[in-house]
Amino acid sequence: MDIPTFDDVVAAHERITPYIHRTPILTSSYLNQLTGAEIFFKCENLQKVGAFKARGASNAVFGLSDADAANGVATHSSGNHAGALSFAAALRGIDATVVMPHNAPATKKAAVRGYGGNIIECEPTQAAREATLEKEVAQSGANVVHPYDDARVIAGQATCVLELHQDIGDLDAVVAPIGGGGLISGTCLALSTLSPQTKIYAAEPAQADDAHRSFQAGEIVTRDAQQSVADGLKTNLRPRTWHFVSRFVNDVLLASEDEILDAMYLTWERMKIIIEPSSAVPLAVMLNNKQLFQGQRVGVVITGGNVDLKHCPGCK
Amino acid sequence: MDIPTFDDVVAAHERITPYIHRTPILTSSYLNQLTGAEIFFKCENLQKVGAFKARGASNAVFGLSDADAANGVATHSSGNHAGALSFAAALRGIDATVVMPHNAPATKKAAVRGYGGNIIECEPTQAAREATLEKEVAQSGANVVHPYDDARVIAGQATCVLELHQDIGDLDAVVAPIGGGGLISGTCLALSTLSPQTKIYAAEPAQADDAHRSFQAGEIVTRDAQQSVADGLKTNLRPRTWHFVSRFVNDVLLASEDEILDAMYLTWERMKIIIEPSSAVPLAVMLNNKQLFQGQRVGVVITGGNVDLKHCPGCK
Repeated sequence: MDIPTFDDVVAAHERITPYIHRTPILTSSYLNQLTGAEIFFKCENLQKVGAFKARGASNAVFGLSDADAANGVATHSSGNHAGALSFAAALRGIDATVVMPHNAPATKKAAVRGYGGNIIECEPTQAAREATLEKEVAQSGANVVHPYDDARVIAGQATCVLELHQDIGDLDAVVAPIGGGGLISGTCLALSTLSPQTKIYAAEPAQADDAHRSFQAGEIVTRDAQQSVADGLKTNLRPRTWHFVSRFVNDVLLASEDEILDAMYLTWERMKIIIEPSSAVPLAVMLNNKQLFQGQRVGVVITGGNVDLKHCPGCK
Repeated sequence: MDIPTFDDVVAAHERITPYIHRTPILTSSYLNQLTGAEIFFKCENLQKVGAFKARGASNAVFGLSDADAANGVATHSSGNHAGALSFAAALRGIDATVVMPHNAPATKKAAVRGYGGNIIECEPTQAAREATLEKEVAQSGANVVHPYDDARVIAGQATCVLELHQDIGDLDAVVAPIGGGGLISGTCLALSTLSPQTKIYAAEPAQADDAHRSFQAGEIVTRDAQQSVADGLKTNLRPRTWHFVSRFVNDVLLASEDEILDAMYLTWERMKIIIEPSSAVPLAVMLNNKQLFQGQRVGVVITGGNVDLKHCPGCK
């Protein structure tokens, strides 16, 4: 099992910088008052393709040899990684094929098509995604870039917190959403070298709490067909992401569906940025655990902003 | 008539920097493709109080002598200036009284109350606002900070484009919304010294086209009770703002109500930022006048993000 190192993170940042935005870090005195913490929001909703996934995908695509790249890339993804891989492949001028659940949000499908990616639809289960992808790759010979269980992707996602640390310095804590664990693994990878004393909290929907259960059990617990408004966080951990979660994460904190939506609308209204439900889970868990963050300097990764505004979840 | 100078802009920037955000400048390759221009969006929706108005109000409030400040400040405003003056007054620890039309958006009234400002409601006409304010000030002796017809406010608003120029350098054109003309006047004031060759376009709702009519006529034309979804742009020019508009603005470009709302949702969806209808008028007029901006480097001021999300205008 290939585990990325901090050197891989530095190399990834150099490799992808020409292709991605240096996203701003925003603050809100209102949300500071509300939580009792001083929060620095790293706004990856303002990233290329509207999500941090542009980082990992670009690192994987631009790290390929010309010979490997010629067969194109392929993946399965419920959304943002799909758009990100299509975006990076288009920049390099190679094919991207994406296996997506048929119930993926319309804006995420449109994003893939907008970047010239090829979509193959499947049932919304982990097993169906993987079988469909395997069949496709057997024919095309495309290089598989898994949305999180991939050392190149984890090193790419780590550049997000690398930039946060470059801009803000040491923090008391960082809170990021957890689905399959790619972003959290990158966060652990970057901070374990840059600022080992910074606490790392993973934020997860209570309805899709496989990472919380894994953390409690001390081993990977998987749950199939998890449902949440935070559609990017329904996937399960893998040994490569569990490697980081089990070693470096201080706790996995939970939020209900209503708490997630409330935090999302609060962010829209007060910060004037569109964030998707998955990105609201960190703020929701901070509001659930104020004593943990009282008076602390906290980094929060806003992971993405791809919401179908015409059918937005629980729109009030 | 007190006309601010470029030295006033430099002094304003130094005075207000401790109290305001250095707002990010965002780009969107999608909107560049759509317009044919290279656009740099100065995001004042991410400013304190959610609007550039924090600049002018802070400059006025923190420029007062202690003796003058003791009587508090007062103004009339349809919204963002009201919140901004209340915000600045609270920071200085003085009273703010705001005359608002009774039909002002709920989020804007809530913002004023949230900052501790005192609201006096009136009919939604220019005459009613001014009469109500005059009566109030006769009693309190408060220092009136007009939302745009005020040299201190214009110098404050000018710091927005001052920062844009510091970060991006010379631009071919800058497009900003025009209502009473405070922001455009500040833009003219900053650019006429920093980059006189940069063209300045004012963007106005076709339904509230007093500035366009004034520009055509060569003198101020006023229209009462103008209605537009761009609620911040219904006010008329004054001699102090006409001073700048008549000398430095290259054209006043118009957009329909539907074009404004389409540009607003397009910005929400593609840029992942919440902008209010007034802020969408520049993009709308650029889409109406593509030939004017083809291949050019264009600065656009996103003026604010205060939308009542529960009752947002024309929400789809």
